[in-house]
Amino acid sequence: MRIARFSIDGNVAFGAVEGDSTGPGLDGLVIDIIKGVPFADFELSGTKVPLDKVRLLSPVLPNKIVAIGRNYAAHAAELGNEVPTAPWAFFKPSTSVIGPGDSIVYPSFSREVHHEAELAVVIKRLCREVPRERVKDVILGYTCANDVTARDTQQTEKQWARAKGFDSSCPLGPWIETDLDPSDLAVTATVNGELRQAGRTAQMINSIEDLIVNITEAMTLLPGDVLLTGTPAGVGPLHPGDEVAVTIEGIGTLTNKVISRG
Amino acid sequence: MRIARFSIDGNVAFGAVEGDSTGPGLDGLVIDIIKGVPFADFELSGTKVPLDKVRLLSPVLPNKIVAIGRNYAAHAAELGNEVPTAPWAFFKPSTSVIGPGDSIVYPSFSREVHHEAELAVVIKRLCREVPRERVKDVILGYTCANDVTARDTQQTEKQWARAKGFDSSCPLGPWIETDLDPSDLAVTATVNGELRQAGRTAQMINSIEDLIVNITEAMTLLPGDVLLTGTPAGVGPLHPGDEVAVTIEGIGTLTNKVISRG
Repeated sequence: MRIARFSIDGNVAFGAVEGDSTGPGLDGLVIDIIKGVPFADFELSGTKVPLDKVRLLSPVLPNKIVAIGRNYAAHAAELGNEVPTAPWAFFKPSTSVIGPGDSIVYPSFSREVHHEAELAVVIKRLCREVPRERVKDVILGYTCANDVTARDTQQTEKQWARAKGFDSSCPLGPWIETDLDPSDLAVTATVNGELRQAGRTAQMINSIEDLIVNITEAMTLLPGDVLLTGTPAGVGPLHPGDEVAVTIEGIGTLTNKVISRG
Repeated sequence: MRIARFSIDGNVAFGAVEGDSTGPGLDGLVIDIIKGVPFADFELSGTKVPLDKVRLLSPVLPNKIVAIGRNYAAHAAELGNEVPTAPWAFFKPSTSVIGPGDSIVYPSFSREVHHEAELAVVIKRLCREVPRERVKDVILGYTCANDVTARDTQQTEKQWARAKGFDSSCPLGPWIETDLDPSDLAVTATVNGELRQAGRTAQMINSIEDLIVNITEAMTLLPGDVLLTGTPAGVGPLHPGDEVAVTIEGIGTLTNKVISRG
């Protein structure tokens, strides 16, 4: 099931996206409104609206986003970095989240903002110290993310709160795919239609199981929290006016424009 | 005014702490229950309960906590680190927050958990790109914090989400003091009554104004968000069974026990 969050006529709801889109747009897709929220048992209302009549929002509003640095060896190498021996976890704040179609706004302090296409894991239930064999039980599904990074700031500020936490630095979407084996999916990023990043989730150094075991050794994850699993090689600059698209096999495409401030 | 958050008979509320405590305890203090929340105009209800009849909670439940590394030169020096040229901002998650009297639980992956006494700033209103002269307007008040850190993990994981983000790693309290000049306050930490850290907020490399300007260049702060302003020299290990107390002049004392897991 593909779970989207959307607004229509000023109301916000979750819904299940149904149908097949034949083109790059959303023609032919409808959304069946969910009664309640997808973090517990829920029912579909049967009330359906065409997807092109709603505004898709970030499919979840996380309390926290835990992200992983250098989880693909080829990406660590392209920045001249060593591969870490343990996952490097950092946080992006809730205020960094935007949805599909929203604008990535260049921060005032950076002249080199990069795209980083990533598979995002959406947490279903409150959990702590999750055993490896129970990891699947705490996952609601998967979506596309762009771990937008002020690369110049990241070099000068050794902790990355500003470089990776500025407003609009965490596009998520277009929806959460709940029925998916995430172990070997193509992850790509294009800028203005040109391929920039291409990798497969099978290249991750630490698997999703590894990461959730590692993170929940330390901290409680809440329903709706998001895990970003690292980016493959090919990161590069974005400029105002660019359109960046992250596509993950079996999920869909997350597209955002880049704009300058004010 | 001293604003506390507390529970009594299963209900949670904010209140204004009144009276003077003559001893180290809470004898003689009463709490006047606030109608509503302290992040907007509010009134006192006039209903007063003795403070020793309630359970004090973390005085705020932040959406995000922005913390600053190495903001006192003597602390950077004691760990053999250089003083950064710009503030190093990192996040602690909402799930790390505990209140006065709650236990700091040793994480399974660390053998060297340290105390870090810090002045905490509680944000009053949603804000972005705050000009220096408006910083005071976005602050509700000040409380004590302990930026509890797994020092061994911090050495091996260069991003600090696990080292400084584990559950119970952010004690806050005992209350928010709203009428205080934070520019030159004594900050101390004791372990089992023995003085370990002693500094003054005047020794900060980046002032509160500097930090809020710097952080809000990048991101929106929300009502209840918390800024930790760095720790003075004297950090050191905590062991299960220890009692750690952070005292800040003009605010009060935040005391927590350290326990081992399970």
